[in-house]
Amino acid sequence: MFVLETYLKEKRSLIDHEISQILLESTASPRITAAMSYSIMAGGKRLRPILCMAAADAVAGKSDEALQTACALEFIHTYSLIHDDLPAMDNDDLRRGQKTCHVAFDEATAILAGDALLTLAFQVFSPAAVKNKNRAARYLQVIHTMATAAGHKGMIAGQMRDISSEGRALSLKDLKETYRLKTGALIEASVATGAIIASATRSQLQQLIRYAEHIGLAFQITDDILNVKGDPAVTGKASGTDEIRRKTTYPALIGVSKSYKTAEKLVKNAIESLKAFDEKSDPLRAIADYIVKRKK
Amino acid sequence: MFVLETYLKEKRSLIDHEISQILLESTASPRITAAMSYSIMAGGKRLRPILCMAAADAVAGKSDEALQTACALEFIHTYSLIHDDLPAMDNDDLRRGQKTCHVAFDEATAILAGDALLTLAFQVFSPAAVKNKNRAARYLQVIHTMATAAGHKGMIAGQMRDISSEGRALSLKDLKETYRLKTGALIEASVATGAIIASATRSQLQQLIRYAEHIGLAFQITDDILNVKGDPAVTGKASGTDEIRRKTTYPALIGVSKSYKTAEKLVKNAIESLKAFDEKSDPLRAIADYIVKRKK
Repeated sequence: MFVLETYLKEKRSLIDHEISQILLESTASPRITAAMSYSIMAGGKRLRPILCMAAADAVAGKSDEALQTACALEFIHTYSLIHDDLPAMDNDDLRRGQKTCHVAFDEATAILAGDALLTLAFQVFSPAAVKNKNRAARYLQVIHTMATAAGHKGMIAGQMRDISSEGRALSLKDLKETYRLKTGALIEASVATGAIIASATRSQLQQLIRYAEHIGLAFQITDDILNVKGDPAVTGKASGTDEIRRKTTYPALIGVSKSYKTAEKLVKNAIESLKAFDEKSDPLRAIADYIVKRKK
Repeated sequence: MFVLETYLKEKRSLIDHEISQILLESTASPRITAAMSYSIMAGGKRLRPILCMAAADAVAGKSDEALQTACALEFIHTYSLIHDDLPAMDNDDLRRGQKTCHVAFDEATAILAGDALLTLAFQVFSPAAVKNKNRAARYLQVIHTMATAAGHKGMIAGQMRDISSEGRALSLKDLKETYRLKTGALIEASVATGAIIASATRSQLQQLIRYAEHIGLAFQITDDILNVKGDPAVTGKASGTDEIRRKTTYPALIGVSKSYKTAEKLVKNAIESLKAFDEKSDPLRAIADYIVKRKK
């Protein structure tokens, strides 16, 4: 029987090991590497890389081949957190229960460490590893997908909208669009790139993206709920900060209880999108469920 | 007869047109796109993209095929300028005679616009454009080369060293290493990626990298000299700022006159590295010369 906890633990261990290996390679600035390592080893859930590997599993049981791509996604995610936490942005001192990068180091180092993680995400696809040209073509598609999701038409646009809208009321439609860009785009790319690595068909790719769209929004709604109802000792983040900043969130717009229901409905739809997949997609199904039930 | 001015003008026009086209594509945040466009259209020399195209010309007269790569290099260069200018870094208000990005917009927008340009550099290699797998493999090598040069083992390490060493005396050896990382790495990558696109042989690639190493350092020494002797009305930058910041520079360490001579010697060596190339490498020769003779 499939046990999610075991799957998550196993994948996390693979991902953490691979990330350490990549960061252990020689560096020209120990301080930058220390800051990169500090933030990426701060105990994240590794949701995006695990989704990537689980998507590769769903298509062809090929999660191992997606490991480099998985790490690249975590590099991008961590860079975005470091930059979002900066004084000029969200000005957060705590992240996952420890000092944010610019507090632990300094602002210049944090900006550069974020830049370095973003750049590293595109460096891990070694051309030397390309024994066959088909893999090169797949890697190129992966890179394009990741960059599009992370860039000015995706995550960065989401962060810009998020900053500009602080203290200003948003409609549910606007909020949804901000979430789709800020969180959804990279979650979709995580699933899509895993599928690409495993040589998914066009139809499989579309179904998996559909799955990812649903869990992406469910994830963000759950984050909103945790900001209201979560235990700071578990989440590692201060509670109630969204309200203090007068940020529009799902609970603020439709209440906590309706937010829960919306997230649960999204998870149901996500799992529904996987109906053409066999038991190799069980990890994706279980992750969808986990996304709304998590406590941090 | 080869006329550098015509060559530069023609390439700049191609590059500027391509960059505009890329930025004109739909965006999810007009503000981010405006900030990206503001900084990249601020009248840069386009040295890196032109070097890339000239290297492709030197190998096979194929500069047109290097146009996307050329733009990607300019995106990376511009992102690095935007982030270097930030208050937490060099805190510069003026760049190329106009307000820096964080002054014209704000700090958060400048950080995000820089992030977006860096990301865009890896997005321009469209997998849809890959009609043949050989091209995909070349693109992958280009991406790896660019990311390595720009990342924590290259340009970012250089900027970190540069910041940490302000107000502290450096040896000539340390200064050279900082310059190699901060400026040299991306200039080398510009030449190398152009060569890769044009399917250079291993030996051609090595000779061109040798050329780039020399002009990279010559370029930085000339920058140092312009900071002392340049005309702010021409350079678009304040003069004497290195001395005010007590930065170690070539003129500070060995004097202006010996710095000139060193730069000229480097250019001579750079041109010497091209001896196996025919007249298709005339642009590279002329650019080497231009690098030390420029007034801005």
